[in-house]
Amino acid sequence: MTTIHIPAREGRAFRVAAGQSFRVIDPEGAQVADLFAFVADDTTEWLSAEHTRVAIGRLFPRVGEGWCTNLRRPILTFVADHSPGVHDMLCAACSPSRYQLLGAEGHHASCEENLQLAMSEFGHEDIEIPQPVNIFEANPILANGDIGIETAPTKAGDSVTLRAELDAIVVVTACPQDLTPLCGGTPSAIDIELL
Amino acid sequence: MTTIHIPAREGRAFRVAAGQSFRVIDPEGAQVADLFAFVADDTTEWLSAEHTRVAIGRLFPRVGEGWCTNLRRPILTFVADHSPGVHDMLCAACSPSRYQLLGAEGHHASCEENLQLAMSEFGHEDIEIPQPVNIFEANPILANGDIGIETAPTKAGDSVTLRAELDAIVVVTACPQDLTPLCGGTPSAIDIELL
Repeated sequence: MTTIHIPAREGRAFRVAAGQSFRVIDPEGAQVADLFAFVADDTTEWLSAEHTRVAIGRLFPRVGEGWCTNLRRPILTFVADHSPGVHDMLCAACSPSRYQLLGAEGHHASCEENLQLAMSEFGHEDIEIPQPVNIFEANPILANGDIGIETAPTKAGDSVTLRAELDAIVVVTACPQDLTPLCGGTPSAIDIELL
Repeated sequence: MTTIHIPAREGRAFRVAAGQSFRVIDPEGAQVADLFAFVADDTTEWLSAEHTRVAIGRLFPRVGEGWCTNLRRPILTFVADHSPGVHDMLCAACSPSRYQLLGAEGHHASCEENLQLAMSEFGHEDIEIPQPVNIFEANPILANGDIGIETAPTKAGDSVTLRAELDAIVVVTACPQDLTPLCGGTPSAIDIELL
């Protein structure tokens, strides 16, 4: 079994073959993992939150459901959830403009830049920036329709398991968000286990 | 005042200057208008539902709010609403794959192809396909978290007014969806008034 350690505030890309499963683990707790996936031999086809919402008819994902691409093909199946079951499919990845608007001074690591760097190391310099599925991210819908921002409810060792339905390049980033409560104020690492 | 008539199942692109307003009108009622917007001099910057949800902190838009781009700059402001106020910011545009999955035989017009055709007529052959803002589209969130599909509640003549905050190319498509209740089973036209 291969383990990929993603240090706090960084991202990593890895290949998975159709049928292969992997776990996304929060080793310390209260950490969000932004997840992107691209079809291995055509990166213009990618995991799409907006097409997945239509496919599953829900705001948030549940075990047993397929997550689909912008061509509506299942690319990942949500196989198991050993966490409180809170994941986001509504919010864009954090990006330089997000941190600028939040008042950060100078450069701030972001999931968008982590994605671009990880994909460029796989030879893909010029990709679209899909909306990720934000594993462990708590954005509850409040009674008045507002989208809340809460700290990820994960404990150390919580995980989700996903199975690839297509040969894919998956990117996971350990979200560097430290200016909202999402990661409890202290971004930490994420581990991947290729099963 | 210029009026642009968008026949049922078709789309049109038009330019608006920063500061210019336009109305999106449902002339017959029960019709959805998928709306896209691109920065006029750089079409890699576009109206982004996923960034707008973060910016407004809500699932659905309200009058007075700005809709922003993938660089989090306001591109349109939602100025006035003369409709029941139901608009969607959750669902991908209908596309060939959507109609295939719904069982359509042969070619079926779609908002995605309408967008591509309208933009190609403006010289932009190779654009990203953003998730649109679906004006008048009723996708209520049900108590169990499911996303409903209902018929647009508009009456003939209902409209929304938007103001451009950047020079933009806007694309509106009269959604050809006739295999779900969205447009009441009979897609009809949309009119645009440039103010």
